[in-house]
Amino acid sequence: MSDDDRPRIALSLIGIGTGNPDHLTREGQVAMRDADLILLPAKRADTAELLDLRQALCASVATDARIVAFDLPERAADGPYRAAVDDWHDAIAAAWARAIAEHLPAGGRLALLVWGDPSLYDSSLRVAARLTAGAMRMTVRVVPGITALQALTAAHAIPLTTLAAPVLVTTGRRLVADGWPSGVDTVAVMLDAKAAYRTVDPAGVRIWWGAYLGMAQQAIAAGPLAEMRDVIPTIRAELRGRHGWIMDSYLLRRGPDD
Amino acid sequence: MSDDDRPRIALSLIGIGTGNPDHLTREGQVAMRDADLILLPAKRADTAELLDLRQALCASVATDARIVAFDLPERAADGPYRAAVDDWHDAIAAAWARAIAEHLPAGGRLALLVWGDPSLYDSSLRVAARLTAGAMRMTVRVVPGITALQALTAAHAIPLTTLAAPVLVTTGRRLVADGWPSGVDTVAVMLDAKAAYRTVDPAGVRIWWGAYLGMAQQAIAAGPLAEMRDVIPTIRAELRGRHGWIMDSYLLRRGPDD
Ligand SMILES: C[S@@+](CC[C@H](N)C(=O)[O-])C[C@H]1O[C@@H](n2cnc3c(N)ncnc32)[C@H](O)[C@@H]1O
Ligand SMILES: C[S@@+](CC[C@H](N)C(=O)[O-])C[C@H]1O[C@@H](n2cnc3c(N)ncnc32)[C@H](O)[C@@H]1O
Repeated sequence: MSDDDRPRIALSLIGIGTGNPDHLTREGQVAMRDADLILLPAKRADTAELLDLRQALCASVATDARIVAFDLPERAADGPYRAAVDDWHDAIAAAWARAIAEHLPAGGRLALLVWGDPSLYDSSLRVAARLTAGAMRMTVRVVPGITALQALTAAHAIPLTTLAAPVLVTTGRRLVADGWPSGVDTVAVMLDAKAAYRTVDPAGVRIWWGAYLGMAQQAIAAGPLAEMRDVIPTIRAELRGRHGWIMDSYLLRRGPDD
Repeated sequence: MSDDDRPRIALSLIGIGTGNPDHLTREGQVAMRDADLILLPAKRADTAELLDLRQALCASVATDARIVAFDLPERAADGPYRAAVDDWHDAIAAAWARAIAEHLPAGGRLALLVWGDPSLYDSSLRVAARLTAGAMRMTVRVVPGITALQALTAAHAIPLTTLAAPVLVTTGRRLVADGWPSGVDTVAVMLDAKAAYRTVDPAGVRIWWGAYLGMAQQAIAAGPLAEMRDVIPTIRAELRGRHGWIMDSYLLRRGPDD
């Protein structure tokens, strides 16, 4: 078929915040209402709660869009990290393409509800790039949303940045691999299932930690790292056991108070 | 008077995003509606537009709150940076206290509309700490909002973080002083009136720049730093001349694409 016959897909990646439906912005709300199709990822059983949450969000904005849950492929647990991620994103792109072919065959406005903000440790833009580079005629628009880091600092009523100072945003894995960077007094950490803060010299460091931020289960804790490094793993294990899953983030700061 | 007689002030610092009224979250909207008093900073004449914008936002949520503009003291242009900032924040705290004494003498719910998110390069939490530590019986709650960095990455439809990699968020001044940190391929820069990106070795670096993000005047530009380092200052000067003021941010990334 010629270029002009291919259906046009206008994709909106909508940041929905971290589980609090009130994180939704007016822009997100309008984008959800304007959509013809909203695709919701159905993940593993233990996070079925997150699918429910997205479904409730759709109901709350009273959209006429067709709402379809699709199976999100899982990442291979073995093999080199980069190759595994590339394969995984290829598989997600293929899953999107199948869902589009089935539910939006003539084209139209497609929305995906992205946890937090689409810019922060999220693969949706990378997956979308595979489709725009492929056979599909697709435009991509990003609607910003509240991130886990903003939910963290809001819950603790603390700044991310102190007086005109820099902050490093990183992952647990990279904190362990790279150590605490020089010249930076604040480090914000996401994607850490292994308590990377325990590898940091706790002298003069405080931690502000939060799990299920923005959600009904929200739990926070803060204090000197020297104390909290032994307390947080216990809290975390207890919560994880109780709820069956956990998402947490934290901020480390060294030096005197502002 | 005894502790119990002091009026109670429940302060909400509400992140309102970067000038797009649709950045407002449902949580921000509810907090604005629930307020008894909303204080709006009246800054210098050349940013009167930002006061208008906040006033329009108040009108759009149909709040019954009393809306009062107060004069925001200016920072002393000379003297050591830290001392000048401390004095400035003292002066702002005094201005808040005066406005509260005048407009909320019996206590109640006070809201301040914070540009972007209250956690990111904003002094409201620091100013509030002066009042809670002082004579006032005040609680502080933070409502997160969309930041300039999220507006920047959304406008360009790019990620802030590439595949599980760290990002440094810093200021123009600190980028010049500290240089590009090792181990980090992405640097996001705010508060830069002096084109700090011109001090960076442009080899292999791309820049994504944006001004008035989220606003009607929004302007963006992106490309190899080697080219854009000479182009952006011209665009910026032209825009600044046309609008009388400017706010801009940018992201620098080195290395191959994701
Ligand atoms: C794949 S990243 C997605 C981040 C998301 N795009 C954002 O803007 O917050 C997942 C990580 O975000 C953090 N996270 C997400 N939601 C969270 C929540 N409600 N509470 C605490 N941390 C959360 C955790 O560090 C988790 O490992
Ligand atoms: C004092 S900081 C406040 C940041 C704000 N709290 C936030 O979350 O974005 C001001 C800096 O934010 C950035 N900024 C704020 N609004 C902006 C906009 N609409 N467009 C571009 N940059 C903006 C600029 O770098 C500016 O120098």
